[in-house]
Amino acid sequence: MRRRVETARVAHLATAGSEGKPHVVAICFALDGDALYFAVDSKPKHSRDLKRLRNIAGNPSVSVLVDHYVEDWSRLWWVRIDGSARIISDGLEFHRAIELLIGRYSQYADARPPGPVVAITIDRMSGWTASGP
Amino acid sequence: MRRRVETARVAHLATAGSEGKPHVVAICFALDGDALYFAVDSKPKHSRDLKRLRNIAGNPSVSVLVDHYVEDWSRLWWVRIDGSARIISDGLEFHRAIELLIGRYSQYADARPPGPVVAITIDRMSGWTASGP
Repeated sequence: MRRRVETARVAHLATAGSEGKPHVVAICFALDGDALYFAVDSKPKHSRDLKRLRNIAGNPSVSVLVDHYVEDWSRLWWVRIDGSARIISDGLEFHRAIELLIGRYSQYADARPPGPVVAITIDRMSGWTASGP
Repeated sequence: MRRRVETARVAHLATAGSEGKPHVVAICFALDGDALYFAVDSKPKHSRDLKRLRNIAGNPSVSVLVDHYVEDWSRLWWVRIDGSARIISDGLEFHRAIELLIGRYSQYADARPPGPVVAITIDRMSGWTASGP
């Protein structure tokens, strides 16, 4: 499961508002020990969606899915990470996370993400494959 | 936006438990007017994850993302649907949804999904493209 997460290029993050309204976004991420990091990209201000950050600030529970869609459904699989998220805007962990993200995504080298960074502490990793265990 | 959703093969669904804990799964879906349908697949019982249904029964708010990941980030886009979900287990709408799903996914023709079906009434469709409007 961990190898599948480590080699994936994109994941999907679900957060929920304090009133329980769910929200889903795609994220580029890096794994480090029992933490998963993603950063807020430098997008045009008007389209920058910070609901993920507002939700996390009010409710740190998150769910992250890494999956692989193919038309041959016997080859489907997914790995889900449930955890607790924190927003970090500076300090050692912030800079280390940015370096990890740049290391994984060459796209970030030219457009260093300003942050903040979200650190997800992995509480549970579960998975499924259509072809069985 | 609608065309992008209509041609996508997979989407990601976020639900939240009544206590606000988010959950994310991949879904195969069909769009029909202002409704989006997906079905519970016939998977081996031990791996069948019904948390999405328990969550929806307690909290109908859902968020669905259709997105396109490519390494050329200038070509990224996403469409998000926020709505309200209902679980339907029989009747006209149930059978129509199953037919729509079979029509979109030939994989279902050989393994007709037993259901139940989830019907999401689309309250809001929003989107973003890296290349601008």
